Amino acid sequence: MPITLAGHQYGKAENRVVRIRRDRARHEIRDVNVTTTLRGDFADAYLTGDQSKVLPTDTQKNTCYAYAGEKGLDAIEDYGLALARHFVDDVAPVSGARVEIEEYAWQRVEVDGAGHDHTWVRAGAEVRTAAVVVEGEGEQQRSWVVGGVKELVVLKSTGSEFSGFLVDGYTTLQPTRDRVMATSLVANWRFTGTDVDWDATYTGIRAVLLREFATVHSLALQQTLWHMGRAVLAEFPRVAEIRLVAPNKHHLPVDLSPFGLDNHGEVFHADDRPYGLIQAVVARDDDPGAPQAWAFGAGRA
Amino acid sequence: MPITLAGHQYGKAENRVVRIRRDRARHEIRDVNVTTTLRGDFADAYLTGDQSKVLPTDTQKNTCYAYAGEKGLDAIEDYGLALARHFVDDVAPVSGARVEIEEYAWQRVEVDGAGHDHTWVRAGAEVRTAAVVVEGEGEQQRSWVVGGVKELVVLKSTGSEFSGFLVDGYTTLQPTRDRVMATSLVANWRFTGTDVDWDATYTGIRAVLLREFATVHSLALQQTLWHMGRAVLAEFPRVAEIRLVAPNKHHLPVDLSPFGLDNHGEVFHADDRPYGLIQAVVARDDDPGAPQAWAFGAGRA
Amino acid sequence: MPITLAGHQYGKAENRVVRIRRDRARHEIRDVNVTTTLRGDFADAYLTGDQSKVLPTDTQKNTCYAYAGEKGLDAIEDYGLALARHFVDDVAPVSGARVEIEEYAWQRVEVDGAGHDHTWVRAGAEVRTAAVVVEGEGEQQRSWVVGGVKELVVLKSTGSEFSGFLVDGYTTLQPTRDRVMATSLVANWRFTGTDVDWDATYTGIRAVLLREFATVHSLALQQTLWHMGRAVLAEFPRVAEIRLVAPNKHHLPVDLSPFGLDNHGEVFHADDRPYGLIQAVVARDDDPGAPQAWAFGAGRA
Amino acid sequence: MPITLAGHQYGKAENRVVRIRRDRARHEIRDVNVTTTLRGDFADAYLTGDQSKVLPTDTQKNTCYAYAGEKGLDAIEDYGLALARHFVDDVAPVSGARVEIEEYAWQRVEVDGAGHDHTWVRAGAEVRTAAVVVEGEGEQQRSWVVGGVKELVVLKSTGSEFSGFLVDGYTTLQPTRDRVMATSLVANWRFTGTDVDWDATYTGIRAVLLREFATVHSLALQQTLWHMGRAVLAEFPRVAEIRLVAPNKHHLPVDLSPFGLDNHGEVFHADDRPYGLIQAVVARDDDPGAPQAWAFGAGRA
Repeated sequence: MPITLAGHQYGKAENRVVRIRRDRARHEIRDVNVTTTLRGDFADAYLTGDQSKVLPTDTQKNTCYAYAGEKGLDAIEDYGLALARHFVDDVAPVSGARVEIEEYAWQRVEVDGAGHDHTWVRAGAEVRTAAVVVEGEGEQQRSWVVGGVKELVVLKSTGSEFSGFLVDGYTTLQPTRDRVMATSLVANWRFTGTDVDWDATYTGIRAVLLREFATVHSLALQQTLWHMGRAVLAEFPRVAEIRLVAPNKHHLPVDLSPFGLDNHGEVFHADDRPYGLIQAVVARDDDPGAPQAWAFGAGRA
Repeated sequence: MPITLAGHQYGKAENRVVRIRRDRARHEIRDVNVTTTLRGDFADAYLTGDQSKVLPTDTQKNTCYAYAGEKGLDAIEDYGLALARHFVDDVAPVSGARVEIEEYAWQRVEVDGAGHDHTWVRAGAEVRTAAVVVEGEGEQQRSWVVGGVKELVVLKSTGSEFSGFLVDGYTTLQPTRDRVMATSLVANWRFTGTDVDWDATYTGIRAVLLREFATVHSLALQQTLWHMGRAVLAEFPRVAEIRLVAPNKHHLPVDLSPFGLDNHGEVFHADDRPYGLIQAVVARDDDPGAPQAWAFGAGRA
Repeated sequence: MPITLAGHQYGKAENRVVRIRRDRARHEIRDVNVTTTLRGDFADAYLTGDQSKVLPTDTQKNTCYAYAGEKGLDAIEDYGLALARHFVDDVAPVSGARVEIEEYAWQRVEVDGAGHDHTWVRAGAEVRTAAVVVEGEGEQQRSWVVGGVKELVVLKSTGSEFSGFLVDGYTTLQPTRDRVMATSLVANWRFTGTDVDWDATYTGIRAVLLREFATVHSLALQQTLWHMGRAVLAEFPRVAEIRLVAPNKHHLPVDLSPFGLDNHGEVFHADDRPYGLIQAVVARDDDPGAPQAWAFGAGRA
Repeated sequence: MPITLAGHQYGKAENRVVRIRRDRARHEIRDVNVTTTLRGDFADAYLTGDQSKVLPTDTQKNTCYAYAGEKGLDAIEDYGLALARHFVDDVAPVSGARVEIEEYAWQRVEVDGAGHDHTWVRAGAEVRTAAVVVEGEGEQQRSWVVGGVKELVVLKSTGSEFSGFLVDGYTTLQPTRDRVMATSLVANWRFTGTDVDWDATYTGIRAVLLREFATVHSLALQQTLWHMGRAVLAEFPRVAEIRLVAPNKHHLPVDLSPFGLDNHGEVFHADDRPYGLIQAVVARDDDPGAPQAWAFGAGRA
């Protein structure tokens, strides 16, 4: 039968690992959601049901927890690299691994003006992410690390306009010189290597994204994304490429004139759907690209 | 037919009102989700389909937006009171109104070390709430205000135990002297009146809730809730009663011994379901209670 | 200190129990989400941290699974009664129990025109619910059973109007003689006793609710709810009271005239928020009411 | 600065279009969620903020509603093709369009044993999807259509095993010869052309997927996916490739022995996270592949 298994991958999704350092009075916490996926010599599991080369997804789960203890869990990029390399190096049928991690931030509870030693409150809605891909053995082994943030919800109440656009027979939108602009940003940045101060870089990129969103006078969300992406590449030489996805979360000024009121551009309806969806990829001119870093994801990072 | 309309209420749920003050260089934002519900002389709408006394829910929506402009939108308790009083006072068939509000917090984006004038990032996962009930006309009018917070996610990595509990034939749990305790707190506090500095009180109560969670050595989540509630009443004389609902979000230590590792109480699985569910009502001894403040809600606050 | 523990309750929420009958070739499945909550002599757990009377929530979980095997899991009302009675009768400090259950429906996969013996596909979006309350010992013991359905999403494309309503200064809505009406119904019906064919009654009530929604020419969603409630009470003598909550999920006709098109009342935008929210309680005239059946719920049924 | 805009796309996401045919006594309904995305000569919108070539996302929304009236909305694949071709053919700067559609199924309410003319209840949890890509002008124009289903939740209570797998130092799983297997299937199938009876094919493929899930004795979810994919290609010659993603929704047998009970393989805990994640691509041997059909999606289909 001329039908073939053209691609496959399997793993364990959403392992909810929490790692607390308690070997000191001032505890530290890392709270992550890890997804592991493996590629390799697994076709028989599909074609004949032979599982002899299949490392159970349950084992992948165990490994996530064990590594959090054995190797530690600090920067999620390092944790992802350790896991992915282990699967490729130590499990014979595995030729490639993709590990996706979401990290939830906590901040210390303030008591008497100081951060508490062992109590936290969840900080922000945003989620830090990492996607790590490792392929190949020994000298041939290659790795890609993509850091990121998602659900970074931002809003500016002026400094945004949208006008001079193309008009066709289905256009009813009026141009505006002053509007609210809001989005829930997803940004993913690919590193050129693995010798990076991951935590400092995350904090730095997040700050640059927010700064550009705030300070660029925006003629469109497209333009804002370009400025965000360009600034990250300009300031972080270890980043080769950044991909941005931004829903335009519409805040519609409400017409109060039927009630004898002037809105003064101050009262808005925050709409749910539909929303604009703007995507941009910003890269260095000389970057050859790395489709392997992005392909066949599990959708978590 | 001996069947009767024993109760009814109707309104408009989840009006997403955003109010920005732009009459100054440093803008201010309030981002809320308002639900209005009305009680009164509306039985005919049900029994015969006669709508002549029914103020459309669309009108209630309009009023939420108009009032945000006309009356302003600062503390949500005041905004809720203005809306509820309007419906009761100005719309003849309305004898009572319940307004529920959720507020989403924003913090200014930091640029060059200072908060930006007109750009914000969403702050925290938690939602501030208010439920306002107004009943009756003129001298007979009564009001109840319930402030609150929900989705306040907290975790402590020690200072919690659970032991000495009742054991029956279905008990397999082992006692523990040291565990992670985490919850997503819902707290609702009823005020004795309406002459309150709402914003300062919200900030103060939130801080007390966090402080108690952090500093009470917990023998059970029940005990922690009691301390939280008691402290709020002790420190805020305008609060008559507080209701607390706390899922016990289990963090299960992972047995790493099959891999030759000692967990050292540091690696946990954050479980989703099931979860403990602990509820407490804490009130002043001499408080007569106020079922009207809590009844027939729309579930948002 | 004149502050008191005025109310309390605790339990285990969202135990995801699946029970399959495999003692026959044609398997049967029940898929439920059970929440147990207990009331009783538990104040010390709050006030002093003394857990000696506290049956762990983990034990409640175990009991849910054990009872599914030991007692079986057929109609959720019976399963809830068995659990609630057990906690009250067999666990000394427990004076009352409330059990809330959600049930997810499955239908057999069709193979060669017949339902398969042991394979199912999830049926419908709706969730069947039951809330059971048992209070007191021996002769004094009382029970209440509330059956229900939620997320029952229905839509009719004509046979609905809304006109003749009250107009005030905030009203902009135009009357309509023909509109789409849609809702996601929540209905909860309280039984007069426990000697009921639960499954047949659920099927019957669901059919009546759908029939009334379809066949009543609606002058308002309020009127439709009244007809639904009245019909259930008229046809099911064991039902004492029914409570209905119905969001009015607005389907807004889109103005196509800017594009030279006539909508013909055929193209709609299904809006998310805000939505109308209509509530009704329909009861028998001579019913004394049963606040105990509804109070202090965990929000699942 | 050697930084470049390496990719971009923009559109309007989640237009909630409902189309009802009312030109007959027996109404027909189509309920969809449409996402349009455009590629083309839009770099200036990013680089300089010049919007003169940008068709507003608001216009794309209008077009979705207008086309539902003007062209009709029957099979979602046809509707998507009409929209995508319009954007490419009629809007000068657009060189390619990707339209993703989700469709929600409704079934007629039964009244007196017959389906009602204009009242429906939502059917099933599953969502039918289509992704249409059109690129290029005139003779050079190419189109790809991918049909699909998601959230197709299925469960079998026997006929599934998992054993003989690879064991390493992190493996604790025991083999099993009889287990519950459940998933929430996502399947996307790419057509070889556009001359297809879309609705009949959807119904047919769905039936084949369910049949294979039911009747294949499964040695692993991998094997089941292969059988599903192969059967679809064998029976539907117009399908070139099918991609399957299946979470392994674990149903864990509960150990009832501490309570003196034998589970008999009948009582399960339906776990939430983590879950296995199995992916497979099944294609015809001679198919050259079509990365354009899958690339740069908006994540809805």
